[in-house]
Amino acid sequence: MMIVMAPEARPEHVDEVVARLEATGTVHAKVVPGAEQVAIAAIGDAGAVRGMGLEALNGVARVVPISRPYKLASSELSHNEPTVFDVAGRRVGPDTFCVIAGPCTVESRDQTLRVADAVAPHAAMLRGGAFKPRTSPFSFNGLGGPALEILAEARERTGLPIVTELTDLTYAETVAEVADVIQIGARNMQNYALLDVVGRLGKPVLLKRGLSSTLEELLMAADYVLKGGTEQVVLCERGIRTFETATRFTLDLGAVPWLKLHTHLPVIVDPSHAAGDRRLVEALARGAAAVGADGIIVEVHDDPDAAMCDGPQQLHARDFPAFTAQVLAHAALAGREPSMP
Amino acid sequence: MMIVMAPEARPEHVDEVVARLEATGTVHAKVVPGAEQVAIAAIGDAGAVRGMGLEALNGVARVVPISRPYKLASSELSHNEPTVFDVAGRRVGPDTFCVIAGPCTVESRDQTLRVADAVAPHAAMLRGGAFKPRTSPFSFNGLGGPALEILAEARERTGLPIVTELTDLTYAETVAEVADVIQIGARNMQNYALLDVVGRLGKPVLLKRGLSSTLEELLMAADYVLKGGTEQVVLCERGIRTFETATRFTLDLGAVPWLKLHTHLPVIVDPSHAAGDRRLVEALARGAAAVGADGIIVEVHDDPDAAMCDGPQQLHARDFPAFTAQVLAHAALAGREPSMP
Amino acid sequence: MMIVMAPEARPEHVDEVVARLEATGTVHAKVVPGAEQVAIAAIGDAGAVRGMGLEALNGVARVVPISRPYKLASSELSHNEPTVFDVAGRRVGPDTFCVIAGPCTVESRDQTLRVADAVAPHAAMLRGGAFKPRTSPFSFNGLGGPALEILAEARERTGLPIVTELTDLTYAETVAEVADVIQIGARNMQNYALLDVVGRLGKPVLLKRGLSSTLEELLMAADYVLKGGTEQVVLCERGIRTFETATRFTLDLGAVPWLKLHTHLPVIVDPSHAAGDRRLVEALARGAAAVGADGIIVEVHDDPDAAMCDGPQQLHARDFPAFTAQVLAHAALAGREPSMP
Amino acid sequence: MMIVMAPEARPEHVDEVVARLEATGTVHAKVVPGAEQVAIAAIGDAGAVRGMGLEALNGVARVVPISRPYKLASSELSHNEPTVFDVAGRRVGPDTFCVIAGPCTVESRDQTLRVADAVAPHAAMLRGGAFKPRTSPFSFNGLGGPALEILAEARERTGLPIVTELTDLTYAETVAEVADVIQIGARNMQNYALLDVVGRLGKPVLLKRGLSSTLEELLMAADYVLKGGTEQVVLCERGIRTFETATRFTLDLGAVPWLKLHTHLPVIVDPSHAAGDRRLVEALARGAAAVGADGIIVEVHDDPDAAMCDGPQQLHARDFPAFTAQVLAHAALAGREPSMP
Repeated sequence: MMIVMAPEARPEHVDEVVARLEATGTVHAKVVPGAEQVAIAAIGDAGAVRGMGLEALNGVARVVPISRPYKLASSELSHNEPTVFDVAGRRVGPDTFCVIAGPCTVESRDQTLRVADAVAPHAAMLRGGAFKPRTSPFSFNGLGGPALEILAEARERTGLPIVTELTDLTYAETVAEVADVIQIGARNMQNYALLDVVGRLGKPVLLKRGLSSTLEELLMAADYVLKGGTEQVVLCERGIRTFETATRFTLDLGAVPWLKLHTHLPVIVDPSHAAGDRRLVEALARGAAAVGADGIIVEVHDDPDAAMCDGPQQLHARDFPAFTAQVLAHAALAGREPSMP
Repeated sequence: MMIVMAPEARPEHVDEVVARLEATGTVHAKVVPGAEQVAIAAIGDAGAVRGMGLEALNGVARVVPISRPYKLASSELSHNEPTVFDVAGRRVGPDTFCVIAGPCTVESRDQTLRVADAVAPHAAMLRGGAFKPRTSPFSFNGLGGPALEILAEARERTGLPIVTELTDLTYAETVAEVADVIQIGARNMQNYALLDVVGRLGKPVLLKRGLSSTLEELLMAADYVLKGGTEQVVLCERGIRTFETATRFTLDLGAVPWLKLHTHLPVIVDPSHAAGDRRLVEALARGAAAVGADGIIVEVHDDPDAAMCDGPQQLHARDFPAFTAQVLAHAALAGREPSMP
Repeated sequence: MMIVMAPEARPEHVDEVVARLEATGTVHAKVVPGAEQVAIAAIGDAGAVRGMGLEALNGVARVVPISRPYKLASSELSHNEPTVFDVAGRRVGPDTFCVIAGPCTVESRDQTLRVADAVAPHAAMLRGGAFKPRTSPFSFNGLGGPALEILAEARERTGLPIVTELTDLTYAETVAEVADVIQIGARNMQNYALLDVVGRLGKPVLLKRGLSSTLEELLMAADYVLKGGTEQVVLCERGIRTFETATRFTLDLGAVPWLKLHTHLPVIVDPSHAAGDRRLVEALARGAAAVGADGIIVEVHDDPDAAMCDGPQQLHARDFPAFTAQVLAHAALAGREPSMP
Repeated sequence: MMIVMAPEARPEHVDEVVARLEATGTVHAKVVPGAEQVAIAAIGDAGAVRGMGLEALNGVARVVPISRPYKLASSELSHNEPTVFDVAGRRVGPDTFCVIAGPCTVESRDQTLRVADAVAPHAAMLRGGAFKPRTSPFSFNGLGGPALEILAEARERTGLPIVTELTDLTYAETVAEVADVIQIGARNMQNYALLDVVGRLGKPVLLKRGLSSTLEELLMAADYVLKGGTEQVVLCERGIRTFETATRFTLDLGAVPWLKLHTHLPVIVDPSHAAGDRRLVEALARGAAAVGADGIIVEVHDDPDAAMCDGPQQLHARDFPAFTAQVLAHAALAGREPSMP
């Protein structure tokens, strides 16, 4: 339920409503400031909220249901105002286009710094995997802690904020120390224990859609993260599993405008994993810009043929400047500037 | 197998090879002219072709396999030269962007002419269904013959060539008399009897991808049409069936660059059926232009709320000029001009 | 809408209702006899039916909506009475289990007669393809007419009724002359022109589920056939297309009990195409019997390794007696006898 | 790679091979005892193993590759011997059929004991959720610790071993104290951190297939658990996500015989979640028995209409005796006895 306060409501009126809601023990209350009116989202036992007679309290204008199964992520909750935030001077939101680039995996100090240097003039942030979820336990699964140190060095050298994945809640603090944005991968989109933790680390979160998750499920997963306290969550479409095997996954670009209608959170696209073939990546990245995404996250390597993981889909670092120029041209048609400090 | 002729081969050398191949009774021979050399595709019993000793004939340079399961549609067969063709002065191919627009269904003379007038200044061709395949036999399935007359009138009035669907081979001649481009719908993509017929009608064919067909199957379906003799086939991605129900179908925009790598045929996109919601159609159309499609086919109605079929996904005619301007801006970034006479 | 007649209604009352409905030109009327009461299904323009005041006519008890998108196939229409029919003494329905077996394709007279002889003591009917839909136009697509003659000879020799596929309405009469049951394949499940024709040929129809068709769409396709006049339609689950490639298709055995709740038509299962591997076929056939199917259609060959089509999934003829014994044991647990004359 | 020892090889020969392999630091060695010969699976860096010259060591017969992407779970590794194990006297393996039953969620002491009493005479084990993964953070997610105490009480009262889910590695020890079998749910099938932990708890593990996981991925997930040291892993098919929405998920019963060909691990089926409708559950459970599953896990409630979770798919406790009788009759046809102490 949503308790909409009157324009003239005072802060103590809001506090009183929140206190009443939280006293139930079964309702989560979240204050949603608006340009003209404050609202309070009361999520949980809707029947209890309905029976509380809140309309009679001072400052309450009306009590209305939240119609969607996702709550905190819903555009209903934000009065349709998009969430905008800033990561070390890089803006994420509707006026900019945020290019996150880097290697699939941190393989070595040299490789990481070379790629970081190559992408730095054109990218908003640096991505790189320290802990890699792998289908087989016998595959290389990342350098772990030492990779985080390499990423920190790359940030110091280039100024690029770091996006890296958290796969195991045991390492939550370790990853949060280095990451500027913490990525939750597709396979962990419904790892609720991890979502609970990542929302409380005080860092922005990049939440990838599960490879067979519906968009409603993605928004409910975002609710887990938002419930922890973080306001800075960016969603990422990365291709879904379908019967088609010509591409590695089927990139659902229709998800972008649909999400824009239903959530206030920014949405980016990962064209690399969906394509599985670098010859398709630029076209998909242009498409992402054209359908209205707020950015992309793309894999770049200085020597993809020698990459330890996902080589065929990683862009050559030498092609990156031309690549970003193409993609940003499409983003510019929608009035978006490159997200740069 | 592909019989590649030497640059100095003479026409009678080519004829000799074709005659030998066709004498087998199990091989289909197709001459493929090239800038420097002619090739002959020998499709069917590869073992027989290999055993014929064609390398020894005058003018034959070499005999090589065609590696893909699709043959006539393969870019191997065209020496990677894209197919370009012209429909009443509208070019379909890599230098233009072809906007096909019109109502889902021809509902009446007035409605059709109103929409035709509205789209004429901005579109390359007019679409409109006379025969509609419907999931239930008790749904409205089109006006049939009278709709064709209305479409002919709309063409006379606006100059727009007509794209309309053939659903039943009984009506092949009737539809071919009016249509400038004959559409084969998604549900008939593997109706091989119909594909056989449509390739022999002497009209360009717009072949829609089946809603759970792989791209390889689409190209093999195109082989059926091309085998009939038509060279002018345009493929259409229109969304595939997946687990996701937020959109009506999942538009597979990755199919466009993949097809561009594997076939010489032009590729367009239908954003309307995939979206199922007009609020998503423009974004998907922009995306189609950005990923490199050769055009779009889009549903437009002067009063969508009153449409007999698929109202929610049809664009308002009044929004069409702004819509095409947006989409063509993305196409222009790739150096494409509007396909106009 | 369904017009339910009073128990005491006389035939002329029924005729009067039918006449009124058909006079509208937009409603299809179908009389549905019942143990105690007759009903008349009025399918098409529900608004018109509602406005006709039929409740006031003699003999009419009440007018109620048909709630499902499928009509003639719905169990609502049959008062939940299952359809049972007989093909040359083989019963298809809830008390028997009908084993249809034979080669994928009629390759030659010898091969077909050998397989027919082998399956005759254990099977209810003989299957065999004369016209084969093939993904590529350059694949073997059946012997056509001569195959029908071979099938007729096999019937004469063994007494087994013949199940064979119709792929092209041009051959409807030809196929109907020989077939005892006409099969519509998965790729033609939404070939509405063909469904229209096959329902008027006076032969039972075996309608296979499209490989990405929902069960509701299957029942609407059955409506097309039933509308033509045939009452004898059997549905066939044959595996759907999913992301899983370990098996050729994913056999949806849950479809069987779901269909049993929603339609009066018999339901059989094709374990061969779903498996794509003969080592899995018996398990799936046993599963079909256990979930309540009315039979199976299974591919058997005397020399599968030499088969022209789908060899890996065809059972060895020598294994067929043990196979049927296993499957029929599961069917017997549900009180079903082998469908035999 | 697999190092196959000669029949006459002595234990110290085996130890020597293992020591050499583990000295590499990149290879995991696992001794696989066989009836006639011991083998050693060397998993990891295959190139290193190939270059070690192990064939020259005493007692080594030959070094052969493991051809599948899954290793420890592969039937290649077990010489095709199925894994059999025992949980408090209930056998899991090819000679028995193991019925695991109980409520979706432990809602209260009374409800749990009532259901446990009802299923005890007919079931092998009791299932019940203490920690429930829920799509929305605002849904009821289980009683947690107190639920474990209730389950322990139910075990003491009925003798039924307990199957319950672990969702969060933080609670691994807590769950392991009470559970006789630890379940990993579908959404956590690729939560590798959790798989790593659960394999080291010394308890049998029930691993559910992810709702869009391939069978190969399921076996690689099993590899994670087996690598931890547990030998007792049972796989569970529970329905996959497809385009079909008539049933909650599409139960892939073909997975059972496929898995039987490719792994030595036992396989059970969850018919409740796939059906989503109790009217379909018995048919699917019979189907599971008929296709060769080693058991089922099924939801039962004494008052499903009042259930806090998944009420529509839970069987009525009063119907459970007839249900198990039906299912076990199909299992008996394959020579399986009920798994009972």
